[in-house]
Amino acid sequence: MGRKSVRQAFRVGSDVDLAAIDPRGRPIGPKDKSAAAAELTGLGAQLDDLQEALIAEASGGGPRSVLLVLQGMDTSGKGGVISHVAGLVNPQGLAIASFKRPTPQELAHDFLWRIRKRVPRPGQIGVFDRSHYEDVLVARVDGLVPEEVWRARYDTINAFESELDSQGVAIVKCMLHISPEKQQERLLARLDDPAKRWKYNPSDVDTRLKWPQYAQAYTDALRACTTDAAPWYVIPSDRKWYRNWAIAALLAETLAVMGPRFPKPGFDVKAERARVQAAKI
Amino acid sequence: MGRKSVRQAFRVGSDVDLAAIDPRGRPIGPKDKSAAAAELTGLGAQLDDLQEALIAEASGGGPRSVLLVLQGMDTSGKGGVISHVAGLVNPQGLAIASFKRPTPQELAHDFLWRIRKRVPRPGQIGVFDRSHYEDVLVARVDGLVPEEVWRARYDTINAFESELDSQGVAIVKCMLHISPEKQQERLLARLDDPAKRWKYNPSDVDTRLKWPQYAQAYTDALRACTTDAAPWYVIPSDRKWYRNWAIAALLAETLAVMGPRFPKPGFDVKAERARVQAAKI
Repeated sequence: MGRKSVRQAFRVGSDVDLAAIDPRGRPIGPKDKSAAAAELTGLGAQLDDLQEALIAEASGGGPRSVLLVLQGMDTSGKGGVISHVAGLVNPQGLAIASFKRPTPQELAHDFLWRIRKRVPRPGQIGVFDRSHYEDVLVARVDGLVPEEVWRARYDTINAFESELDSQGVAIVKCMLHISPEKQQERLLARLDDPAKRWKYNPSDVDTRLKWPQYAQAYTDALRACTTDAAPWYVIPSDRKWYRNWAIAALLAETLAVMGPRFPKPGFDVKAERARVQAAKI
Repeated sequence: MGRKSVRQAFRVGSDVDLAAIDPRGRPIGPKDKSAAAAELTGLGAQLDDLQEALIAEASGGGPRSVLLVLQGMDTSGKGGVISHVAGLVNPQGLAIASFKRPTPQELAHDFLWRIRKRVPRPGQIGVFDRSHYEDVLVARVDGLVPEEVWRARYDTINAFESELDSQGVAIVKCMLHISPEKQQERLLARLDDPAKRWKYNPSDVDTRLKWPQYAQAYTDALRACTTDAAPWYVIPSDRKWYRNWAIAALLAETLAVMGPRFPKPGFDVKAERARVQAAKI
């Protein structure tokens, strides 16, 4: 018996109850910070090798890529994951897209317009820092569109993600699950550290006050859009070391299952060897 | 007396003689691989802090950014620098642009058209994997444009880089200097390792055979375009550990001299502290 799959351990079903998931939980994996650090080093090496094979495969015409979608309340650690997990791989193969409040031009288009432009190309590991899910989260909580509009988006999202899946994009959707107490602690820490203060935005408190509405919107989005083509993973994120380990492990397992392959050379290796050896300068 | 400046140690003047620079040289810095690895860890931490301050400064409206330009013959290590040096910083603040053979659309414009689109935005560390210098290197060696055209480009480049400098872009131009013997060794290694073979391109040998023409084109470009606004650095690159250390040290010194500053908060810290503490969920 091998180790339990990390994908299974974090995957949620269409009956998910966020309130029942402990933000300090540890359903699988290392017991403490030092064990997690040791595992992370190994995962970094694995990710490096797998990513190189993915890039190589694409150089030979392969269509496949990976898309990591990060969602979570302010301070849940989307930036930390990008720095500590995405930072483990070769930046040449990394494509990070940060979706902030849509511009007037973006609002003039369908909500997936700006998203489609940032889908990772073959060989890339794409990271979405927020995503099309904002269009069923903040858009709903702040009443930016009528209910029939955001409600119809669940199906649109599922169709879109299924299309990506069939094109060879392996989608890894992670909800970084923190407690409101941990958010308060982290907001205060940002205010107290002069080197972190620039990350604080007074509007974070306004959003925080809508916590129950966001919890409901997240629950409905997870339930409606956790599919076989693009499952949702809920990552206990009150402890940064656990969150980072979990997402690195999810990425590594996803890539290992994909099994990217080095392409066959499009040239005669022996003949090229001879050419290189003959090319004296 | 502090340590000698790494910028001074690698900077070349308008009389540079590439043939007189040893690709295994070590004008400054660590004596061996293990010393370089230890220094690189410290440089990584420094770069992290300085980059965070640069991003913070830009979030407050500051215009500054860094642009690392990488040029060098095939196998000189442009990709290795991106993976091992650019990989030290937070990928959220990194913008890598790889300039391959221009597309027909790009060729229909001035040679700087595609370059301008990829100039790093405020707060970013941009990396050019090849650059506008290809337009005075391959364009000259392969006779893609008449001599009067490529010759006029030196002035155009100097004016462009001076414009960037005055906009707040700190330009760090590195020529990765390898010997033809080392290139031969690395090309053979790519052919011999099935996991590296995909990086080999038969046209690399054709380019290799034009080594003397490239050496002349590089020399002329370095001489014409090493300016105070955007000096050229020649990095001995036969040893990967030295090359990576040197470029990390150059970047760290450049950022340290820039001295990016955290912006003053645009809100009342005490009042926000009270708001966060009152926001119970």
